[in-house]
Amino acid sequence: MSIRTRHLEDYVLGEARETFGRTITETDIVVHAGHTGDFFPHHVDAEFAKTLAGGQRIAHGTMVFAIGIGLTASEINPVAFSYGYDKLRFVKPVHIGDTIRSRVSITDVRPDPKRPGFGRVTEHVDIVNQRDETVLVCDHLHLVESKAKPA
Amino acid sequence: MSIRTRHLEDYVLGEARETFGRTITETDIVVHAGHTGDFFPHHVDAEFAKTLAGGQRIAHGTMVFAIGIGLTASEINPVAFSYGYDKLRFVKPVHIGDTIRSRVSITDVRPDPKRPGFGRVTEHVDIVNQRDETVLVCDHLHLVESKAKPA
Amino acid sequence: MSIRTRHLEDYVLGEARETFGRTITETDIVVHAGHTGDFFPHHVDAEFAKTLAGGQRIAHGTMVFAIGIGLTASEINPVAFSYGYDKLRFVKPVHIGDTIRSRVSITDVRPDPKRPGFGRVTEHVDIVNQRDETVLVCDHLHLVESKAKPA
Amino acid sequence: MSIRTRHLEDYVLGEARETFGRTITETDIVVHAGHTGDFFPHHVDAEFAKTLAGGQRIAHGTMVFAIGIGLTASEINPVAFSYGYDKLRFVKPVHIGDTIRSRVSITDVRPDPKRPGFGRVTEHVDIVNQRDETVLVCDHLHLVESKAKPA
Amino acid sequence: MSIRTRHLEDYVLGEARETFGRTITETDIVVHAGHTGDFFPHHVDAEFAKTLAGGQRIAHGTMVFAIGIGLTASEINPVAFSYGYDKLRFVKPVHIGDTIRSRVSITDVRPDPKRPGFGRVTEHVDIVNQRDETVLVCDHLHLVESKAKPA
Amino acid sequence: MSIRTRHLEDYVLGEARETFGRTITETDIVVHAGHTGDFFPHHVDAEFAKTLAGGQRIAHGTMVFAIGIGLTASEINPVAFSYGYDKLRFVKPVHIGDTIRSRVSITDVRPDPKRPGFGRVTEHVDIVNQRDETVLVCDHLHLVESKAKPA
Repeated sequence: MSIRTRHLEDYVLGEARETFGRTITETDIVVHAGHTGDFFPHHVDAEFAKTLAGGQRIAHGTMVFAIGIGLTASEINPVAFSYGYDKLRFVKPVHIGDTIRSRVSITDVRPDPKRPGFGRVTEHVDIVNQRDETVLVCDHLHLVESKAKPA
Repeated sequence: MSIRTRHLEDYVLGEARETFGRTITETDIVVHAGHTGDFFPHHVDAEFAKTLAGGQRIAHGTMVFAIGIGLTASEINPVAFSYGYDKLRFVKPVHIGDTIRSRVSITDVRPDPKRPGFGRVTEHVDIVNQRDETVLVCDHLHLVESKAKPA
Repeated sequence: MSIRTRHLEDYVLGEARETFGRTITETDIVVHAGHTGDFFPHHVDAEFAKTLAGGQRIAHGTMVFAIGIGLTASEINPVAFSYGYDKLRFVKPVHIGDTIRSRVSITDVRPDPKRPGFGRVTEHVDIVNQRDETVLVCDHLHLVESKAKPA
Repeated sequence: MSIRTRHLEDYVLGEARETFGRTITETDIVVHAGHTGDFFPHHVDAEFAKTLAGGQRIAHGTMVFAIGIGLTASEINPVAFSYGYDKLRFVKPVHIGDTIRSRVSITDVRPDPKRPGFGRVTEHVDIVNQRDETVLVCDHLHLVESKAKPA
Repeated sequence: MSIRTRHLEDYVLGEARETFGRTITETDIVVHAGHTGDFFPHHVDAEFAKTLAGGQRIAHGTMVFAIGIGLTASEINPVAFSYGYDKLRFVKPVHIGDTIRSRVSITDVRPDPKRPGFGRVTEHVDIVNQRDETVLVCDHLHLVESKAKPA
Repeated sequence: MSIRTRHLEDYVLGEARETFGRTITETDIVVHAGHTGDFFPHHVDAEFAKTLAGGQRIAHGTMVFAIGIGLTASEINPVAFSYGYDKLRFVKPVHIGDTIRSRVSITDVRPDPKRPGFGRVTEHVDIVNQRDETVLVCDHLHLVESKAKPA
């Protein structure tokens, strides 16, 4: 974790990075069930899960999202803040023992028409497993200060 | 948690429900930081947080989302599955001691043009605090089997 | 979780329900040891556990009880409250990977001689594993308001 | 934690001990809710809890029991094992910040008529708070080997 | 856990004890990563860990230390307190499934030249695995009251 | 977290850095007690803690150490590894609500006389609270590859 001040003008379209990996464990699923109260049998009942497509428990979508985004949280930009996500999609299930990492690329940088002195930066996040298969995608939306002060 | 089979035709536009409440505690924030690896000082450094707008630590956006969605996970529909979220927005910060609940309403029900025999149901989720202020919104997307079998 | 108001007169002897299942994981045992401070080697020392009958670590009895009862906590009855348990017995050990579920049946409904306007309802709880073997039983005791107001 | 071999004949009626204390924290309640899946608003919704008698969240009964019993788990007796509990009663609510300790006394020692070479020892457990008020009681049942071998 | 008052004069050079064992689980590693914020891939990325000497994830050194010392925390001496550690060394890696125990021996007892009425007691701690291999060593330093009051 | 290859020759005596801060919460203490099994009343019994010097529960020394070191774990050096600690001292108690950060400085860099091609780097770690008071110090020891290959 480090601090790096980046204004709107400092973001470069297409700029990309990849995070470290993290193995999704049975512990993570048990912790997430307890953290969110979602004890659906798809996540916590190994017997029931034998009837699912993959034949085993699957990670909560909200967990793959939260951990995958957590992996990207390595740099604090004091002139930006995250205001939401678009097009969050669960592409493939994540099972116990899968190792995920996140690929982030800047896909949109534009002034904010309604907020002079600010712009919007979109980071596309592609969470992949150890076979390089995409398991979740989303667009992470940031409001960023512009160097150009409003008139 | 209960099982309730609902086909596409069973979803009624405008149908709404509200979940139980849950108080967001310091424990939840510490657990979420450890669960996701996001130890940004906005969440875990009370001294730093004194410099923020609200003067105190704020809950992770991914946590408000995961817990708020967890609150809605009360009914298993065997002929539906969640495939993603749209327009997830962090509207207001959540602080330690705030109590959130989720309001869910059906805002869209339509056949899936690409997948005969299936349709798409959108649930709008409005997570509110104890002052009835919206803190997070999103559209929860479901793929649901239709009673009408494809020709 | 839902709210369902049931007075003493609404309970029917013999009425039964079965909960969803939950797989008891190594995580649950580690969490329970840390939650209760019970680090007996039967639960947390895999080498020692090789000398036990089943040859492996066993779940804490208090945990099988707490999780098995937690599984039954799906309905809030505002005119009832739980005041205790009788005849709690550990019938069979639970090992890592076993999946438990709880079967609940109403075995006693009677007016409370000492508290006019109230009665006592006994739920027999039978916690079973994936082989349908009973692992724990207990009688869950409730004090419930009667519709008949005391004279 | 230590090992102390005690046969049936070594248990003395009336023998008593008191455990160390432990403060019940908000963390314990959040952990127990997540561990058991019991998110009843009495435990996790501070707003709802304002409407309760004490005006605040109350600890789960199963948690007070599990932690109170955990406090007593200081000595391993290789010739005894716990087989259940009787007359478990929730006497008073436990709130966040209360400090509990357990008082244990031997209230019954008798040969087991059905299992020659074994006897039954009952420990009465009285869990008290910092005001010395009993919050939970139960009888802890043990099967203990006798020195006298069966004929 | 018990209380045992031991003054400086009560410590005997060479006196030794061995703790109970505890199996280090995947859960412990996930919990420690989240507790400390250390998500180095050596601990949490099973794919990366295949490239390490042992071919698998290794326990955090700080965790082996904290749990190994925790195992020794069985006796409270009201006239002593721990003030530090010397020569803490990671001797061998600990993997998931290894069972550790701690061997403690008194290796130094001496008056404290600067603090009349107090002395220093060194406990050498040797944390071993299930193959009796030392995995971590350290010297645990205590300040202990002397029976001999300062002149 | 990032990767930065630094050989022995790249370490500069006196080079210093300071980490982000982290508030030590009641949750951390409860988690650490459960993680290590150390439930000494100094840490988990608020009533007993009133009799201590500071009048309140104190954080476990092993926790302040593990979290303080965790804060420094921001950079992976593939040609170095941590082999231990020296002169670990608990200087001041840490209480619930204190915010700690770690100051690290290179205090020794030298070839390893016994292992040609390697050297030893000592990082002095000074963990401070929000009042800039040192609460814990230690010397973190690393074995680092030299650019100069052994003859």
